[in-house]
Amino acid sequence: MEYHFQVRWGETDAAGIVFYPSFYSWMDEASHHYFTEIGYPTTKLYENENIGIPLVEAKCVFKSPLYFGDQVTVESTVSKVRNKVFTINHVFLKEGKMVAEGMEIRAWAALNPNLKAVSIPDEVRNALQQTGTAV
Amino acid sequence: MEYHFQVRWGETDAAGIVFYPSFYSWMDEASHHYFTEIGYPTTKLYENENIGIPLVEAKCVFKSPLYFGDQVTVESTVSKVRNKVFTINHVFLKEGKMVAEGMEIRAWAALNPNLKAVSIPDEVRNALQQTGTAV
Amino acid sequence: MEYHFQVRWGETDAAGIVFYPSFYSWMDEASHHYFTEIGYPTTKLYENENIGIPLVEAKCVFKSPLYFGDQVTVESTVSKVRNKVFTINHVFLKEGKMVAEGMEIRAWAALNPNLKAVSIPDEVRNALQQTGTAV
Amino acid sequence: MEYHFQVRWGETDAAGIVFYPSFYSWMDEASHHYFTEIGYPTTKLYENENIGIPLVEAKCVFKSPLYFGDQVTVESTVSKVRNKVFTINHVFLKEGKMVAEGMEIRAWAALNPNLKAVSIPDEVRNALQQTGTAV
Repeated sequence: MEYHFQVRWGETDAAGIVFYPSFYSWMDEASHHYFTEIGYPTTKLYENENIGIPLVEAKCVFKSPLYFGDQVTVESTVSKVRNKVFTINHVFLKEGKMVAEGMEIRAWAALNPNLKAVSIPDEVRNALQQTGTAV
Repeated sequence: MEYHFQVRWGETDAAGIVFYPSFYSWMDEASHHYFTEIGYPTTKLYENENIGIPLVEAKCVFKSPLYFGDQVTVESTVSKVRNKVFTINHVFLKEGKMVAEGMEIRAWAALNPNLKAVSIPDEVRNALQQTGTAV
Repeated sequence: MEYHFQVRWGETDAAGIVFYPSFYSWMDEASHHYFTEIGYPTTKLYENENIGIPLVEAKCVFKSPLYFGDQVTVESTVSKVRNKVFTINHVFLKEGKMVAEGMEIRAWAALNPNLKAVSIPDEVRNALQQTGTAV
Repeated sequence: MEYHFQVRWGETDAAGIVFYPSFYSWMDEASHHYFTEIGYPTTKLYENENIGIPLVEAKCVFKSPLYFGDQVTVESTVSKVRNKVFTINHVFLKEGKMVAEGMEIRAWAALNPNLKAVSIPDEVRNALQQTGTAV
Protein backbone atom coordinates (compact mmCIF):
# COMPACT_ATOMS: atom_id res chain seq x y z
CA MET A 1 0.00 0.00 0.00
CA GLU A 2 1.35 3.40 -0.93
CA TYR A 3 0.82 6.70 0.88
CA HIS A 4 2.05 9.90 -0.74
CA PHE A 5 2.79 13.26 0.86
CA GLN A 6 4.86 16.39 0.42
CA VAL A 7 7.06 17.71 3.25
CA ARG A 8 5.41 20.78 4.76
CA TRP A 9 7.26 23.91 5.88
CA GLY A 10 6.12 23.39 9.47
CA GLU A 11 7.72 19.94 9.55
CA THR A 12 11.23 21.36 9.14
CA ASP A 13 13.46 22.59 11.94
CA ALA A 14 16.24 25.16 12.30
CA ALA A 15 18.79 22.71 10.86
CA GLY A 16 16.84 23.01 7.59
CA ILE A 17 15.76 19.37 7.59
CA VAL A 18 12.66 17.54 8.81
CA PHE A 19 12.15 17.45 12.60
CA TYR A 20 12.44 13.72 13.25
CA PRO A 21 9.15 13.04 15.12
CA SER A 22 7.39 13.93 11.84
CA PHE A 23 8.46 10.53 10.49
CA TYR A 24 6.29 8.93 13.17
CA SER A 25 3.36 11.23 12.31
CA TRP A 26 3.73 10.07 8.70
CA MET A 27 3.82 6.39 9.74
CA ASP A 28 0.64 7.11 11.69
CA GLU A 29 -0.95 8.68 8.60
CA ALA A 30 0.18 5.78 6.41
CA SER A 31 -1.34 3.25 8.83
CA HIS A 32 -4.68 5.08 8.93
CA HIS A 33 -4.58 5.25 5.13
CA TYR A 34 -3.86 1.50 4.98
CA PHE A 35 -6.99 0.64 6.95
CA THR A 36 -9.09 2.97 4.81
CA GLU A 37 -7.80 1.32 1.64
CA ILE A 38 -8.56 -2.24 2.82
CA GLY A 39 -12.13 -1.23 3.66
CA TYR A 40 -11.84 -0.45 7.37
CA PRO A 41 -11.47 3.33 7.62
CA THR A 42 -10.32 4.19 11.12
CA THR A 43 -12.77 7.13 11.11
CA LYS A 44 -15.61 4.59 11.04
CA LEU A 45 -13.94 2.16 13.47
CA TYR A 46 -13.57 5.04 15.89
CA GLU A 47 -17.06 6.54 15.48
CA ASN A 48 -19.16 3.40 15.08
CA GLU A 49 -17.29 0.64 16.88
CA ASN A 50 -15.27 2.38 19.62
CA ILE A 51 -12.12 0.83 18.14
CA GLY A 52 -8.68 2.38 17.79
CA ILE A 53 -5.22 1.14 16.86
CA PRO A 54 -2.89 2.48 19.62
CA LEU A 55 0.84 1.87 19.58
CA VAL A 56 2.73 -0.85 21.41
CA GLU A 57 6.10 -0.03 19.88
CA ALA A 58 7.51 2.06 17.05
CA LYS A 59 10.94 2.35 15.50
CA CYS A 60 12.53 4.20 12.62
CA VAL A 61 16.00 4.18 11.04
CA PHE A 62 16.96 7.40 9.24
CA LYS A 63 19.18 7.11 6.15
CA SER A 64 19.03 10.55 4.51
CA PRO A 65 17.41 13.79 5.64
CA LEU A 66 14.23 15.10 4.04
CA TYR A 67 13.75 18.75 3.09
CA PHE A 68 10.85 21.16 2.67
CA GLY A 69 8.86 20.36 -0.45
CA ASP A 70 10.19 16.83 -0.94
CA GLN A 71 7.69 14.44 -2.52
CA VAL A 72 7.70 11.23 -0.50
CA THR A 73 6.14 7.79 -0.91
CA VAL A 74 5.56 5.48 2.05
CA GLU A 75 5.25 1.80 1.19
CA SER A 76 3.42 0.04 4.02
CA THR A 77 3.21 -3.71 4.51
CA VAL A 78 1.56 -5.70 7.30
CA SER A 79 4.12 -8.33 8.29
CA LYS A 80 2.61 -9.99 11.38
CA VAL A 81 -0.93 -10.43 12.69
CA ARG A 82 -1.29 -11.88 16.18
CA ASN A 83 -4.46 -12.19 18.29
CA LYS A 84 -4.64 -8.58 19.48
CA VAL A 85 -1.62 -6.93 17.87
CA PHE A 86 -0.14 -6.53 14.39
CA THR A 87 3.07 -5.20 12.86
CA ILE A 88 3.14 -2.77 9.97
CA ASN A 89 6.37 -1.88 8.16
CA HIS A 90 6.93 1.44 6.43
CA VAL A 91 9.58 2.26 3.84
CA PHE A 92 10.06 5.96 2.97
CA LEU A 93 11.12 6.65 -0.62
CA LYS A 94 12.20 9.89 -2.26
CA GLU A 95 12.74 9.70 -6.02
CA GLY A 96 12.82 5.93 -5.70
CA LYS A 97 15.59 5.92 -3.10
CA MET A 98 14.95 4.74 0.47
CA VAL A 99 15.44 7.59 2.95
CA ALA A 100 14.06 5.91 6.09
CA GLU A 101 12.67 2.58 7.22
CA GLY A 102 10.34 2.13 10.17
CA MET A 103 7.80 -0.15 11.78
CA GLU A 104 4.90 0.07 14.17
CA ILE A 105 3.44 -2.61 16.42
CA ARG A 106 -0.16 -1.67 17.10
CA ALA A 107 -2.96 -3.13 19.19
CA TRP A 108 -6.59 -3.51 18.14
CA ALA A 109 -8.24 -1.81 21.11
CA ALA A 110 -11.54 -0.71 22.59
CA LEU A 111 -11.17 3.02 23.34
CA ASN A 112 -13.85 3.77 25.97
CA PRO A 113 -14.27 3.77 28.87
CA ASN A 114 -10.73 2.42 29.19
CA LEU A 115 -8.22 1.63 26.50
CA LYS A 116 -8.07 -2.19 26.27
CA ALA A 117 -6.64 -4.48 23.59
CA VAL A 118 -9.21 -6.94 22.18
CA SER A 119 -9.05 -9.72 19.58
CA ILE A 120 -8.78 -8.62 15.98
CA PRO A 121 -12.01 -9.71 14.22
CA ASP A 122 -11.52 -12.50 11.67
CA GLU A 123 -12.63 -10.38 8.71
CA VAL A 124 -10.11 -7.68 9.60
CA ARG A 125 -7.42 -10.30 10.13
CA ASN A 126 -8.14 -11.74 6.70
CA ALA A 127 -8.04 -8.33 5.07
CA LEU A 128 -4.70 -7.56 6.74
CA GLN A 129 -3.22 -10.92 5.76
CA GLN A 130 -4.38 -10.75 2.16
CA THR A 131 -2.93 -7.31 1.58
CA GLY A 132 0.22 -7.81 3.60
CA THR A 133 2.89 -10.44 3.78
CA ALA A 134 1.55 -11.58 7.14
CA VAL A 135 1.37 -15.26 8.04
CA MET B 1 19.60 13.33 33.99
CA GLU B 2 15.94 14.18 34.58
CA TYR B 3 13.64 16.18 32.32
CA HIS B 4 10.19 17.13 33.58
CA PHE B 5 7.11 18.14 31.63
CA GLN B 6 3.34 18.18 31.79
CA VAL B 7 1.21 16.72 28.98
CA ARG B 8 -0.32 19.56 26.98
CA TRP B 9 -3.88 19.59 25.59
CA GLY B 10 -2.55 19.78 22.03
CA GLU B 11 -0.58 16.56 22.50
CA THR B 12 -3.73 14.47 22.99
CA ASP B 13 -5.80 12.96 20.19
CA ALA B 14 -9.46 12.01 19.71
CA ALA B 15 -8.92 8.74 21.62
CA GLY B 16 -8.34 10.95 24.68
CA ILE B 17 -4.71 9.85 25.06
CA VAL B 18 -1.40 11.26 23.88
CA PHE B 19 -0.77 11.15 20.11
CA TYR B 20 2.21 8.80 19.96
CA PRO B 21 4.73 10.91 17.98
CA SER B 22 4.73 13.27 21.00
CA PHE B 23 6.89 10.71 22.84
CA TYR B 24 9.59 11.30 20.24
CA SER B 25 9.25 15.08 20.60
CA TRP B 26 9.76 14.60 24.35
CA MET B 27 12.83 12.40 23.79
CA ASP B 28 14.14 15.18 21.56
CA GLU B 29 13.50 17.77 24.29
CA ALA B 30 15.13 15.51 26.91
CA SER B 31 18.24 15.08 24.74
CA HIS B 32 18.58 18.83 24.17
CA HIS B 33 18.13 19.33 27.93
CA TYR B 34 20.82 16.71 28.60
CA PHE B 35 23.41 18.58 26.55
CA THR B 36 22.50 21.87 28.22
CA GLU B 37 22.92 20.30 31.66
CA ILE B 38 26.37 18.84 30.89
CA GLY B 39 27.60 22.23 29.69
CA TYR B 40 27.04 21.94 25.94
CA PRO B 41 23.73 23.68 25.24
CA THR B 42 22.59 22.74 21.74
CA THR B 43 21.53 26.36 21.22
CA LYS B 44 25.21 27.33 21.38
CA LEU B 45 26.46 24.33 19.42
CA TYR B 46 24.03 25.28 16.69
CA GLU B 47 24.71 29.04 16.66
CA ASN B 48 28.44 29.11 17.32
CA GLU B 49 29.82 25.84 16.02
CA ASN B 50 27.44 24.77 13.22
CA ILE B 51 26.88 21.50 15.10
CA GLY B 52 23.65 19.53 15.48
CA ILE B 53 22.70 16.10 16.81
CA PRO B 54 20.49 14.55 14.08
CA LEU B 55 18.91 11.14 14.43
CA VAL B 56 20.25 7.86 13.10
CA GLU B 57 17.59 5.70 14.74
CA ALA B 58 14.87 6.04 17.39
CA LYS B 59 12.62 3.56 19.12
CA CYS B 60 10.00 3.62 21.84
CA VAL B 61 7.98 0.93 23.63
CA PHE B 62 4.66 2.13 25.05
CA LYS B 63 3.46 0.52 28.31
CA SER B 64 0.58 2.73 29.47
CA PRO B 65 -1.13 5.69 27.82
CA LEU B 66 -0.56 9.25 29.02
CA TYR B 67 -3.38 11.76 29.47
CA PHE B 68 -3.79 15.54 29.36
CA GLY B 69 -2.26 17.16 32.44
CA ASP B 70 -0.09 14.18 33.45
CA GLN B 71 3.17 15.15 35.14
CA VAL B 72 5.96 13.13 33.57
CA THR B 73 9.65 12.60 34.30
CA VAL B 74 12.08 11.43 31.64
CA GLU B 75 15.25 9.80 32.96
CA SER B 76 17.92 9.99 30.25
CA THR B 77 21.19 8.06 30.22
CA VAL B 78 23.92 7.99 27.61
CA SER B 79 24.76 4.32 27.14
CA LYS B 80 27.18 4.27 24.19
CA VAL B 81 29.61 6.80 22.71
CA ARG B 82 31.25 5.85 19.41
CA ASN B 83 33.41 8.03 17.15
CA LYS B 84 30.60 10.00 15.49
CA VAL B 85 27.45 8.60 17.09
CA PHE B 86 26.07 8.04 20.58
CA THR B 87 23.07 6.29 22.14
CA ILE B 88 20.82 7.94 24.68
CA ASN B 89 18.17 5.97 26.59
CA HIS B 90 14.98 7.55 27.90
CA VAL B 91 12.65 6.12 30.56
CA PHE B 92 9.25 7.85 30.98
CA LEU B 93 7.85 7.82 34.51
CA LYS B 94 4.44 8.90 35.81
CA GLU B 95 4.03 8.83 39.58
CA GLY B 96 7.13 6.68 39.75
CA LYS B 97 5.77 4.06 37.36
CA MET B 98 7.36 3.46 33.95
CA VAL B 99 4.91 4.30 31.16
CA ALA B 100 7.29 4.12 28.18
CA GLU B 101 10.89 3.31 27.38
CA GLY B 102 12.77 4.62 24.38
CA MET B 103 16.17 5.26 22.90
CA GLU B 104 17.77 7.47 20.30
CA ILE B 105 20.97 6.95 18.31
CA ARG B 106 22.23 10.36 17.27
CA ALA B 107 25.14 11.62 15.21
CA TRP B 108 27.40 14.55 16.04
CA ALA B 109 27.11 16.47 12.76
CA ALA B 110 28.13 19.61 10.94
CA LEU B 111 24.89 21.23 9.75
CA ASN B 112 25.95 23.52 6.86
CA PRO B 113 26.37 23.50 3.98
CA ASN B 114 25.55 19.79 4.06
CA LEU B 115 24.61 17.62 7.01
CA LYS B 116 27.68 15.44 7.72
CA ALA B 117 28.62 13.37 10.77
CA VAL B 118 31.97 14.33 12.30
CA SER B 119 34.02 13.02 15.24
CA ILE B 120 32.69 13.85 18.69
CA PRO B 121 35.27 16.18 20.34
CA ASP B 122 37.12 14.59 23.26
CA GLU B 123 35.80 17.01 25.83
CA VAL B 124 32.21 16.30 24.79
CA ARG B 125 32.95 12.56 24.77
CA ASN B 126 34.29 12.81 28.31
CA ALA B 127 31.29 14.80 29.50
CA LEU B 128 28.92 12.24 27.97
CA GLN B 129 30.81 9.30 29.48
CA GLN B 130 31.09 10.82 32.93
CA THR B 131 27.38 11.57 33.16
CA GLY B 132 26.17 8.43 31.44
CA THR B 133 26.88 4.76 31.79
CA ALA B 134 28.82 4.86 28.53
CA VAL B 135 32.02 2.86 28.12
CA MET C 1 -1.19 35.55 35.14
CA GLU C 2 2.21 34.50 33.84
CA TYR C 3 3.08 31.38 31.86
CA HIS C 4 6.73 30.61 31.19
CA PHE C 5 8.26 28.36 28.53
CA GLN C 6 11.42 27.84 26.52
CA VAL C 7 11.30 27.55 22.72
CA ARG C 8 11.81 23.90 21.74
CA TRP C 9 13.88 22.73 18.77
CA GLY C 10 10.83 21.16 17.15
CA GLU C 11 9.02 24.51 17.16
CA THR C 12 11.51 26.09 14.77
CA ASP C 13 11.38 25.88 10.98
CA ALA C 14 13.91 25.96 8.15
CA ALA C 15 14.07 29.78 8.30
CA GLY C 16 15.68 29.28 11.73
CA ILE C 17 12.80 30.97 13.57
CA VAL C 18 9.67 29.68 15.28
CA PHE C 19 7.00 28.20 13.00
CA TYR C 20 4.15 30.67 13.54
CA PRO C 21 1.30 28.29 14.54
CA SER C 22 3.37 27.55 17.67
CA PHE C 23 2.31 30.95 19.03
CA TYR C 24 -1.29 29.68 19.04
CA SER C 25 -0.23 26.45 20.80
CA TRP C 26 1.43 28.63 23.44
CA MET C 27 -1.70 30.79 23.83
CA ASP C 28 -3.61 27.54 24.28
CA GLU C 29 -1.15 26.39 26.96
CA ALA C 30 -1.31 29.79 28.69
CA SER C 31 -5.12 29.67 28.78
CA HIS C 32 -5.16 26.16 30.25
CA HIS C 33 -2.58 27.33 32.80
CA TYR C 34 -4.76 30.34 33.63
CA PHE C 35 -7.74 28.17 34.53
CA THR C 36 -5.55 25.89 36.64
CA GLU C 37 -4.17 28.86 38.55
CA ILE C 38 -7.61 30.33 39.34
CA GLY C 39 -8.77 26.99 40.72
CA TYR C 40 -10.50 25.48 37.69
CA PRO C 41 -7.97 23.15 36.09
CA THR C 42 -9.20 22.23 32.62
CA THR C 43 -8.10 18.64 33.27
CA LYS C 44 -10.81 18.41 35.93
CA LEU C 45 -13.39 20.39 33.93
CA TYR C 46 -12.86 17.95 31.10
CA GLU C 47 -12.85 14.72 33.14
CA ASN C 48 -15.50 15.52 35.74
CA GLU C 49 -17.83 18.03 34.16
CA ASN C 50 -17.68 17.37 30.39
CA ILE C 51 -16.63 21.02 29.92
CA GLY C 52 -14.11 22.43 27.46
CA ILE C 53 -13.10 25.89 26.30
CA PRO C 54 -13.10 25.71 22.45
CA LEU C 55 -12.13 28.64 20.27
CA VAL C 56 -14.47 31.15 18.65
CA GLU C 57 -11.70 33.38 17.32
CA ALA C 58 -7.95 33.86 17.73
CA LYS C 59 -5.53 36.48 16.53
CA CYS C 60 -1.85 37.23 16.94
CA VAL C 61 0.40 40.09 15.84
CA PHE C 62 4.08 39.18 15.46
CA LYS C 63 6.67 41.87 16.31
CA SER C 64 10.00 40.01 16.46
CA PRO C 65 10.88 36.41 15.66
CA LEU C 66 11.63 33.88 18.41
CA TYR C 67 14.53 31.44 18.23
CA PHE C 68 15.38 28.00 19.61
CA GLY C 69 16.14 28.19 23.32
CA ASP C 70 14.51 31.58 23.93
CA GLN C 71 12.99 31.97 27.39
CA VAL C 72 9.54 33.47 26.98
CA THR C 73 6.90 34.82 29.36
CA VAL C 74 3.24 35.03 28.39
CA GLU C 75 1.18 37.53 30.37
CA SER C 76 -2.49 36.56 30.10
CA THR C 77 -5.43 38.76 31.10
CA VAL C 78 -9.14 38.06 30.81
CA SER C 79 -10.63 41.22 29.31
CA LYS C 80 -14.28 40.31 28.66
CA VAL C 81 -16.69 37.79 30.13
CA ARG C 82 -20.05 37.40 28.38
CA ASN C 83 -22.75 34.80 29.03
CA LYS C 84 -21.14 31.89 27.18
CA VAL C 85 -17.89 33.35 25.83
CA PHE C 86 -14.87 35.21 27.20
CA THR C 87 -11.82 36.98 25.80
CA ILE C 88 -8.30 36.33 27.01
CA ASN C 89 -5.37 38.52 25.93
CA HIS C 90 -1.82 37.23 25.73
CA VAL C 91 1.36 39.30 25.58
CA PHE C 92 4.61 37.47 24.72
CA LEU C 93 7.76 38.87 26.33
CA LYS C 94 11.41 37.97 25.77
CA GLU C 95 13.88 39.65 28.11
CA GLY C 96 11.17 42.11 29.06
CA LYS C 97 10.49 43.15 25.45
CA MET C 98 7.17 42.38 23.74
CA VAL C 99 7.68 40.03 20.78
CA ALA C 100 4.03 39.21 20.00
CA GLU C 101 0.56 40.11 21.14
CA GLY C 102 -2.49 37.90 20.72
CA MET C 103 -5.99 37.19 21.94
CA GLU C 104 -8.42 34.32 22.03
CA ILE C 105 -12.20 34.39 22.25
CA ARG C 106 -13.31 31.10 23.79
CA ALA C 107 -16.66 29.53 24.57
CA TRP C 108 -17.57 27.64 27.74
CA ALA C 109 -18.90 24.44 26.19
CA ALA C 110 -20.32 21.01 26.92
CA LEU C 111 -18.13 18.55 24.98
CA ASN C 112 -20.28 15.41 24.59
CA PRO C 113 -22.28 14.20 22.83
CA ASN C 114 -22.12 17.39 20.77
CA LEU C 115 -20.01 20.47 21.30
CA LYS C 116 -22.41 23.17 22.57
CA ALA C 117 -21.73 26.51 24.28
CA VAL C 118 -23.42 26.84 27.68
CA SER C 119 -23.60 29.64 30.30
CA ILE C 120 -20.44 30.23 32.28
CA PRO C 121 -21.22 29.32 35.94
CA ASP C 122 -21.30 32.32 38.29
CA GLU C 123 -18.38 31.12 40.40
CA VAL C 124 -16.20 30.74 37.30
CA ARG C 125 -17.36 34.13 36.04
CA ASN C 126 -16.39 35.69 39.37
CA ALA C 127 -12.99 34.02 39.37
CA LEU C 128 -12.33 35.24 35.80
CA GLN C 129 -13.42 38.78 36.62
CA GLN C 130 -11.44 39.02 39.83
CA THR C 131 -8.20 37.90 38.22
CA GLY C 132 -8.69 39.74 34.95
CA THR C 133 -9.65 43.24 33.95
CA ALA C 134 -13.06 42.00 32.84
CA VAL C 135 -16.19 44.01 33.58
CA MET D 1 -6.76 29.18 -5.43
CA GLU D 2 -7.88 25.94 -3.78
CA TYR D 3 -5.92 23.77 -1.36
CA HIS D 4 -7.34 20.41 -0.35
CA PHE D 5 -6.53 18.27 2.68
CA GLN D 6 -7.99 15.63 4.95
CA VAL D 7 -7.94 16.07 8.75
CA ARG D 8 -5.28 13.77 10.22
CA TRP D 9 -5.68 11.79 13.45
CA GLY D 10 -2.79 13.69 15.04
CA GLU D 11 -4.56 17.01 14.48
CA THR D 12 -7.42 16.11 16.81
CA ASP D 13 -7.43 16.59 20.57
CA ALA D 14 -9.10 14.91 23.53
CA ALA D 15 -12.35 16.82 22.91
CA GLY D 16 -12.58 14.78 19.68
CA ILE D 17 -12.26 17.85 17.46
CA VAL D 18 -9.32 19.53 15.71
CA PHE D 19 -6.77 21.24 17.99
CA TYR D 20 -7.21 24.87 16.93
CA PRO D 21 -3.57 25.80 16.04
CA SER D 22 -3.90 23.28 13.19
CA PHE D 23 -6.03 25.84 11.32
CA TYR D 24 -2.99 28.12 11.23
CA SER D 25 -0.78 25.27 9.98
CA TRP D 26 -3.31 24.74 7.20
CA MET D 27 -3.33 28.44 6.32
CA ASP D 28 0.45 28.21 6.16
CA GLU D 29 0.23 25.18 3.84
CA ALA D 30 -2.38 26.95 1.68
CA SER D 31 -0.15 30.04 1.36
CA HIS D 32 2.88 27.96 0.34
CA HIS D 33 0.65 26.13 -2.15
CA TYR D 34 -0.59 29.48 -3.51
CA PHE D 35 2.93 30.64 -4.34
CA THR D 36 3.74 27.31 -5.96
CA GLU D 37 0.66 27.55 -8.14
CA ILE D 38 1.40 31.09 -9.36
CA GLY D 39 4.91 30.06 -10.37
CA TYR D 40 6.93 31.06 -7.29
CA PRO D 41 7.34 27.89 -5.24
CA THR D 42 8.53 28.87 -1.76
CA THR D 43 10.93 25.91 -1.87
CA LYS D 44 12.82 27.69 -4.65
CA LEU D 45 12.48 31.17 -3.12
CA TYR D 46 14.00 29.75 0.04
CA GLU D 47 16.81 27.72 -1.58
CA ASN D 48 17.79 30.01 -4.43
CA GLU D 49 16.91 33.53 -3.36
CA ASN D 50 17.12 33.52 0.46
CA ILE D 51 13.48 34.70 0.53
CA GLY D 52 10.74 33.68 2.96
CA ILE D 53 7.24 34.90 3.74
CA PRO D 54 7.13 35.31 7.55
CA LEU D 55 4.01 36.38 9.39
CA VAL D 56 3.11 39.89 10.51
CA GLU D 57 -0.36 38.99 11.74
CA ALA D 58 -2.80 36.09 11.54
CA LYS D 59 -6.41 35.66 12.55
CA CYS D 60 -9.06 32.98 12.30
CA VAL D 61 -12.76 32.81 13.18
CA PHE D 62 -14.07 29.32 13.92
CA LYS D 63 -17.68 28.53 12.92
CA SER D 64 -17.97 24.75 13.24
CA PRO D 65 -15.53 22.16 14.56
CA LEU D 66 -13.68 19.80 12.22
CA TYR D 67 -13.30 16.09 12.90
CA PHE D 68 -10.81 13.34 12.05
CA GLY D 69 -11.11 12.34 8.41
CA ASP D 70 -13.00 15.44 7.25
CA GLN D 71 -12.24 16.48 3.67
CA VAL D 72 -11.58 20.21 3.64
CA THR D 73 -11.07 22.82 0.93
CA VAL D 74 -9.27 26.09 1.62
CA GLU D 75 -10.07 28.91 -0.82
CA SER D 76 -7.24 31.44 -0.67
CA THR D 77 -7.35 34.95 -2.14
CA VAL D 78 -4.72 37.67 -2.03
CA SER D 79 -6.63 40.83 -1.05
CA LYS D 80 -3.89 43.44 -0.54
CA VAL D 81 -0.35 43.88 -1.84
CA ARG D 82 1.71 46.67 -0.30
CA ASN D 83 5.43 47.41 -0.79
CA LYS D 84 6.80 44.72 1.54
CA VAL D 85 3.68 43.00 2.90
CA PHE D 86 0.57 41.34 1.51
CA THR D 87 -2.69 39.97 2.88
CA ILE D 88 -4.03 36.53 2.01
CA ASN D 89 -7.55 35.45 3.01
CA HIS D 90 -8.47 31.82 3.61
CA VAL D 91 -11.97 30.34 3.70
CA PHE D 92 -12.31 26.76 5.02
CA LEU D 93 -15.10 24.70 3.45
CA LYS D 94 -16.43 21.26 4.38
CA GLU D 95 -19.05 19.82 2.02
CA GLY D 96 -19.48 23.30 0.58
CA LYS D 97 -20.22 24.89 3.98
CA MET D 98 -17.87 27.44 5.54
CA VAL D 99 -16.41 26.12 8.80
CA ALA D 100 -13.77 28.79 9.42
CA GLU D 101 -12.50 32.02 7.93
CA GLY D 102 -9.02 33.39 8.43
CA MET D 103 -6.39 35.73 7.09
CA GLU D 104 -2.64 36.17 7.17
CA ILE D 105 -0.57 39.32 6.70
CA ARG D 106 2.86 38.25 5.53
CA ALA D 107 6.09 40.06 4.71
CA TRP D 108 8.37 39.37 1.76
CA ALA D 109 11.66 38.93 3.62
CA ALA D 110 15.34 38.14 3.25
CA LEU D 111 16.02 35.23 5.65
CA ASN D 112 19.80 35.34 6.27
CA PRO D 113 21.79 36.58 8.03
CA ASN D 114 18.91 38.45 9.67
CA LEU D 115 15.23 38.31 8.89
CA LYS D 116 14.41 41.60 7.12
CA ALA D 117 11.39 42.65 5.05
CA VAL D 118 12.27 43.80 1.52
CA SER D 119 10.25 45.12 -1.42
CA ILE D 120 8.14 42.56 -3.25
CA PRO D 121 9.57 42.26 -6.81
CA ASP D 122 7.30 43.64 -9.52
CA GLU D 123 6.83 40.30 -11.25
CA VAL D 124 5.71 38.68 -8.00
CA ARG D 125 3.45 41.66 -7.26
CA ASN D 126 1.85 41.27 -10.69
CA ALA D 127 1.36 37.56 -10.22
CA LEU D 128 -0.27 38.12 -6.82
CA GLN D 129 -2.55 40.87 -8.15
CA GLN D 130 -3.64 38.94 -11.22
CA THR D 131 -4.62 35.86 -9.25
CA GLY D 132 -6.10 37.68 -6.27
CA THR D 133 -8.52 40.53 -5.82
CA ALA D 134 -5.68 42.83 -4.81
CA VAL D 135 -5.57 46.42 -5.94
